[in-house]
This record gives sequence, C-alpha cells and structure tokens, in this order.
Amino acid sequence: MKRIFEQKNIFCLPWAQTILGTHLNGKVNFMALDWLTRVNIAPPMLGICVNKNNASHGAVIDTGEFSINLPTVDMIEKTDYAGLVSGKHVDKSDLFEVFYGELKSAPMISECPLTIECKLSQTVDLPTHSFFIAEIINIYTEDAFLSEGKPDIMKIRPFLLTMPDNNYWAVGENLGKAWSVGKQFRTTRR
Amino acid sequence: MKRIFEQKNIFCLPWAQTILGTHLNGKVNFMALDWLTRVNIAPPMLGICVNKNNASHGAVIDTGEFSINLPTVDMIEKTDYAGLVSGKHVDKSDLFEVFYGELKSAPMISECPLTIECKLSQTVDLPTHSFFIAEIINIYTEDAFLSEGKPDIMKIRPFLLTMPDNNYWAVGENLGKAWSVGKQFRTTRR
Repeated sequence: MKRIFEQKNIFCLPWAQTILGTHLNGKVNFMALDWLTRVNIAPPMLGICVNKNNASHGAVIDTGEFSINLPTVDMIEKTDYAGLVSGKHVDKSDLFEVFYGELKSAPMISECPLTIECKLSQTVDLPTHSFFIAEIINIYTEDAFLSEGKPDIMKIRPFLLTMPDNNYWAVGENLGKAWSVGKQFRTTRR
Repeated sequence: MKRIFEQKNIFCLPWAQTILGTHLNGKVNFMALDWLTRVNIAPPMLGICVNKNNASHGAVIDTGEFSINLPTVDMIEKTDYAGLVSGKHVDKSDLFEVFYGELKSAPMISECPLTIECKLSQTVDLPTHSFFIAEIINIYTEDAFLSEGKPDIMKIRPFLLTMPDNNYWAVGENLGKAWSVGKQFRTTRR
C-alpha cells in the first residue's frame, strides 16, 4: 500500500561519499560532499551542490576551482569529521596530505584512490544551495586501483551514504554487467 | 604513484540506479537513469541529467513532469532493458505497472519501493545534455520498506552502477552512522 513519505527534503537514495577540496582564504579546506552528478559528456563536466551556509560555498566562488576526492572505507572517520566541523571555525588544512594537478586551487587528497580536478564553468543559483557546474580537467588514480585499465570498485572500496537514517554502507556483491543483463529480457519480449 | 586516468568523459563513482518515468507523445515511457542529485533543501529539489539524443529528453521538456523510481535488485533485468532500447523505436509503456500522484505526466512504477514525483522548474542547457532541475512534489513508499519511519536500504535493496567498467553492485554491509563516526576523531584532534 503506497503512502507518502513526508521527509521529502531529504533524499532517500544511496549515494557515493566524496570529499570536496578547496582553497578557503588561501588555505586548504575539505568538506564531506554527497550531492553531485555527471552532467555532460563532451566536454566532461560534473555538478556539485553546496549549501550557501557552508564555508566551501564561498571558496568555490572565490577561486573557481575545486577537487572531488573519493575516500576508501578506511578513511570513514576522517571523512565524517570533515562533515562535522566547518571551515569557518576549524582549520582542516592538515587533515589530509594533498597534491596538485594543473589548477592552483584544487587540492587533491593523496590517500584517495581517485580524485577529480575541476574548473567552475557555471553557477546555478537556487534558494538554499548553489549548483556548481564544472569541467573535469583531469582524473587521477593509481595502477593499483585499476583492473583491465579501468577503476575497480573492489580495489577502491568507496562507501555510500543514505539519509535520513544517516548510515554509511560498503559496496556489496557484483550483480552483473550493465547494458547486458537485460539482453535476455529483450529477446523474450520480441 | 598517481597517474592521469584518460577516460575522464566517464564518471568513476558508484551511483544509485534509477528509472526515469515520463509521458512520451502521450504514452508512458521509461529510461534507465544514473545521473541525478539533490540540489536544494527548501523547497526540496533534485536535478537529473539527460542526453539530448534520448527520447526522454523531449518528453521532459514537453510535459514539464517526470518521476524517479528506485528499483530493487529483483528488477535488474527490466531496468537494464529500459536502458538498452530507446523509446524512439520501442514501446516500453507496458514494461511496468504504474500509478499516479498529483501530476498527470509523472507515471510511477508500482513495484518500485520508492518513487519520486517531480515538476520541472529550470533547464540548464549544456553541450551534449540538459540538466533538469525539478521540485519534488511527493515521495511514495510503503510501510514494508521503512524502519523507525525512515526508508531502510536493506529492505529496499537498490543497486548501483559503476562506469566505465559497466558493472551493477548490491549495497553491502553497514559501516556506521554518518555525522557520528568522526566524533571520536574530533575529540582526538582537540
């Protein structure tokens, strides 16, 4: 029996936990970030959603640059911490060792298996948040996290967040190939 | 040793597999959709990214309404099929049983444990895709999928997609509470 779920201000889907890296007033800053998606293929672009009350919101606007970092399950405590305290009050610049690619204000986390260097191209102003659309300048990883030349989620071991129950989850078992497991069903329907 | 991953046109994060429901030329249509995110809290809004070549792209623009449906692992074949064939060539209207909420052109899938009814509010035009920002009108679920009044991912059993390896994944073990597991680390840093 269908019912309306009242907490519609909270998204109910599982999504990948990431860490947003910025330069805040000239210093490295980090923030736990979950609201992001790819938005364009050519050029490669992604969009992130940041609350206007967050210190990182001003940092992205000021510099026009940021990084998206994919932490492993081993980094869950430090990632959660990055979401517990604000860069307005706490200096988080030493939380992770960072490296840089082409951009000057997109600090990337060395211990993250996959990091994305982004340059802001468009800001969509919404009531409580801004949606920052950015071009992907480079994606960085290590051979140890690849299988057959592609990122391997079982080697990367990222984790997921669900709300409003506020739980972290591991990625589970493989369920088959996309654009493939439906082929048998397609044959049946013909 | 960091290296640049060349396939930057493909997103490497795991994301929740959903099904986009629309009315295409007056008939129900479905499309597998992965690129979506929350974008605003008040009012509750989400954004979805659709390729301009997809039939669903025109359907969203024509009607200004759509649904986001969260399938379970048991629906993996039909979901994959919805992404294998285009509404331009194949009538997918009978693929799932649907129900409606407040909107006339946002068909929701009855067998999905959680569905979101959306009304388009803004279209961001990008080179290959459009990013559709929509207000969440209602979220529908059933008591069987809730624990303590909140959607329970272990009861819903959604699945994830990774690219470019194109694999589907189950959600794995619980790793603890968000906005909580980092508190001990915060204490240590003080």
